Parts: sequence; C-alpha cells; structure tokens
Amino acid sequence: MNYCSHCGKVVKVIIPEGDNLPRHVCSDCGMIHYQNPKIVTGCIPEWQDKILLCKRGIEPRHGLWTLPAGFMENNETTAEGAARETREETLAEVEIVELYSLFNIPHISQVYLLFRARMNDLDFGPTHESLEVALFAEDEIPWEELAFPVIRETLLRYFNDRSNGEYKLQLGDITPAMKKQMGKPWPG
Amino acid sequence: MNYCSHCGKVVKVIIPEGDNLPRHVCSDCGMIHYQNPKIVTGCIPEWQDKILLCKRGIEPRHGLWTLPAGFMENNETTAEGAARETREETLAEVEIVELYSLFNIPHISQVYLLFRARMNDLDFGPTHESLEVALFAEDEIPWEELAFPVIRETLLRYFNDRSNGEYKLQLGDITPAMKKQMGKPWPG
Repeated sequence: MNYCSHCGKVVKVIIPEGDNLPRHVCSDCGMIHYQNPKIVTGCIPEWQDKILLCKRGIEPRHGLWTLPAGFMENNETTAEGAARETREETLAEVEIVELYSLFNIPHISQVYLLFRARMNDLDFGPTHESLEVALFAEDEIPWEELAFPVIRETLLRYFNDRSNGEYKLQLGDITPAMKKQMGKPWPG
Repeated sequence: MNYCSHCGKVVKVIIPEGDNLPRHVCSDCGMIHYQNPKIVTGCIPEWQDKILLCKRGIEPRHGLWTLPAGFMENNETTAEGAARETREETLAEVEIVELYSLFNIPHISQVYLLFRARMNDLDFGPTHESLEVALFAEDEIPWEELAFPVIRETLLRYFNDRSNGEYKLQLGDITPAMKKQMGKPWPG
C-alpha cells in the first residue's frame, strides 16, 4: 500500500495515537487503513463413503488436489460462502451439515473454515478454476499431491474421526514447518 | 475507495474478467482491490459463576456493556486475538478454554468468534477503551444496556447452556431485525 484509497495522497506507516501497531496512515487526510486476516471458507463434500476433491486449475498449487474453498465475500455467511465456493470449483450443489474445522494460518493471516456438506446428487465436473473434479474413498486420497498443509491436516483428522465414529470440531494452527509434510503419503 | 492504493490512480467499479462480482479495479495499473469480511474475536471471561463485561468507552455504543472483543490482527491466531482484546479492554489475563460461538453478521460483513476463557486472577479494570469493567452473575447481567445483538444472543445461549450443564458450540446468523431486541430484558 503506497497511496490513500480515499484521497489518493501518499500513506506513511506509523503507529497512530492510542494504537500499538504500525498502520498505513494517509499523510494528507489522516485516514487509517487497517489490514486484517481473511477468511477462507469451504466444504468437505460427502457422497456415501467418498469425498469430492478438485485439482487446482489456477495458481498457487496449479495441478494439485484440494477441497473446494476460497475467500469469503462481503454480505454472505460462512456457510453460504462455503456452498458458493463448492459450486464455483466443482459445480456440485451441497447442503451444509456442520462446521468441521477452524484452522488459523497466522503467517499468511488467513483463517480456514471447513464445513461437512452433503452432495445432493452426482452432478459435478471441472470449471475454469478446476482441471478435474472427482470422488475419492479414504484409500484413494492423493496424499502426495495435496495442495496445502491445511487440507492435509483437515483430511487426516477427518478420516481419523470417521474411523472413531464421531466428528468433532477441529481447531488448530498451521505453521510454516508443516509444509515439510507436503508430498508425503498418509502417515497412518 | 476512490484511488488505487498501489499506484494512486482512479479506481472503477467493474466486474473483472472471469469474476462474477463488481470489484474496485485500478484504471491504470489494473490491480483488483478485493474487500472481504472481517473477524471480530473475543472472550467470555469466567470467574467462578460470574463473567466479565466492559462498558464501552468508545463509539459505537459508547456507555453500553459488552464482552471484550475486537478486530483480529494480521499474524495472530483467533485465540491470541481474543486474549489480546480481553487484555486491551479489561486488563484481565485469561486462558482460552474453547471456542464457544461463531456468528455471521452478513449485513456488516463481520464474523464474530467468542471463546470461553478462564480468568487467572481478579486483576482487571478500566482502560482507555472501557469506562468500567465488572463481574456479573447471571441475574446481574445488564440485559437492557447491552451494546450489540451478537452479544445478547451469545449470552442468552451461554446461560441457557450453562443451566443445561453443557456448553455446545453455537453457530448462527445475526440479522438487522435482531436490533429490535436491544434494550429489552432477559426473555427467560
């Protein structure tokens, strides 16, 4: 951020009076431009004993597999955003079942919310964001080709919960060190 | 938003190619400036059978009571943000117990996350954001002087859960119509 989005003049990075963190502040009109974490919302779409994954057709992680998820938009709920992202990335229509996981990713200022969701039917397919969309049983998950640590962590916990017969809300933090697990097979 | 924060030129509101929502797009450098919901994170600080509330010393809702909560900052977790806001608004140090509620407020593009939290001791007091900070038993809650519908809704569910002997994760949406309940006593 170099310029004030309100008046177009140059911004400086200073700690405003009464604050304790540096902010982008307009040198002319004084407007403070706060920057805050973004919510990524998405689904674990379920069909019988399988879940729906999509192969990313856009960067980052083009060509790797992920759950349908994306940035929450203004004026929607987290569940509406999760269903919308699922539609945009897989063409599937889902019914939200429940919130399954909340993961903080503080080093990139994101909070991931993933919902268990019921697929209404088998209408799904690739979109301009996804090269391929497919259902996977637990033993078919492409563990070595997953796009993001938060997806790996969510799926590990999901199948563990499923084998225990109970889904519990999962909370956790994703650290940069967890990138080292990417490309590795299921550890179980 | 009138000007591009990257290059300082005028922005237009258009639907970018491959998108389906209007965005602020720079007429010169082409940068797309997305706007997304913000997370408000905070605590229900518990001490024996009482909870800690603060009387707002800043707008909006100056002089009304609320739970300590505020905008999540970049590079922190939701729980860290909740403890930080509690410290900033009440001086209290807390240990996070668990996530208690997630409320969407789509008409103002906010998502509220409130955590049950254990107070370490009775060190608390007013700050530059709070006129007064005090512990309240259930029958002392100032229902008619609460600041926000999301706080009223959270506290109603919290005391209901407590009387049932079990705290359950609460998810819900806050609508503009719920403002009509403000200023009213506990409905139970």
